[in-house]
Amino acid sequence: MIGEELDRLIKLLARLPGLGPRSARRAALYMLQNRETAMAPLTDALSDTMSAISTCTICGNLDSTQPCGICRDPRRDETLICVVEDVGDLWALERSGAFRGRYHVLGGVLSALDGIGPEQLSVEPLLARAREPSVTEVILALPATVDAQTTAHYLGDRLAGCGVTVSGLAKGVPVGGELDYLDDGTLLAALKARKAL
Amino acid sequence: MIGEELDRLIKLLARLPGLGPRSARRAALYMLQNRETAMAPLTDALSDTMSAISTCTICGNLDSTQPCGICRDPRRDETLICVVEDVGDLWALERSGAFRGRYHVLGGVLSALDGIGPEQLSVEPLLARAREPSVTEVILALPATVDAQTTAHYLGDRLAGCGVTVSGLAKGVPVGGELDYLDDGTLLAALKARKAL
Repeated sequence: MIGEELDRLIKLLARLPGLGPRSARRAALYMLQNRETAMAPLTDALSDTMSAISTCTICGNLDSTQPCGICRDPRRDETLICVVEDVGDLWALERSGAFRGRYHVLGGVLSALDGIGPEQLSVEPLLARAREPSVTEVILALPATVDAQTTAHYLGDRLAGCGVTVSGLAKGVPVGGELDYLDDGTLLAALKARKAL
Repeated sequence: MIGEELDRLIKLLARLPGLGPRSARRAALYMLQNRETAMAPLTDALSDTMSAISTCTICGNLDSTQPCGICRDPRRDETLICVVEDVGDLWALERSGAFRGRYHVLGGVLSALDGIGPEQLSVEPLLARAREPSVTEVILALPATVDAQTTAHYLGDRLAGCGVTVSGLAKGVPVGGELDYLDDGTLLAALKARKAL
């Protein structure tokens, strides 16, 4: 009814995270109605990105330079390595502007259920970087999920012999968080880690 | 921080309906992590669609053939023309399978606020089609909004001299609709158009 090319485009769009069949149809229609301003630039941007953006061989970030802009930036603190699960988490930390050291993208977390062991993650490269004399601290900025915390424990053990301090993100009440809406685990963690004012 | 190509891709994705900055970032990241299965096919599908899909010169539908598959299909009832606001509405009717005639895409509705008059819409081509001897009925399948209903009245007046029956979609309680959740206008319309069982 709508041509096989369009049908294929809608099916591919619907597979993107955050889009379903309905929003994929709307997006395809919007692009066909705005060929010059939306469809052509997006096609170009996709093929430019595909050829220009690669994974940094040092930290695993995505960038158009090799190594990435963060690894090459001399103003960034090379004594600190912040370990993140994926590039999306790296972007989130960069947007916050809270961290001025270097990163290491793990590429996932350990998961017995999904069959993800240490060899599927970027663990050995992390240990090699941690052993470099310039590095003094590794911050494990992993999610507060069970699998990620298991991973953090595992990495803590492995990093123990590398001559670095290993730290994790503080757990507690999120800024703007109402106690009434928080889960018991967060409340417990926030109470246990309470601080003198 | 993330390369200008990727930055541009995310900005373009964020402009699509249904996507915002956050989901655009997630979609771009997903594509970069699935280059062969998501990014490359999507790039190809976009450029294929852009070159293959065009607007049907008869009805305004989007298809890879000219005229479109619906206008060329001899099994479809050529005595009925269903007028829709845009191609998305045409797709919705086609998915329902409820209509087996031909379509006419108006390309919008009259709107004094947005400066859309009859000359911006596909009104003259519709009148020309309605005057063809084979056409006996024009169904105005326009949304139940104020602007669209104004447009329906206008089209009803213009179609009066074309020798066709002009009809509109029935108004009433949607299938599965709870009375408690319906607006007053719908309840009033459903009561006024009540039917003997």
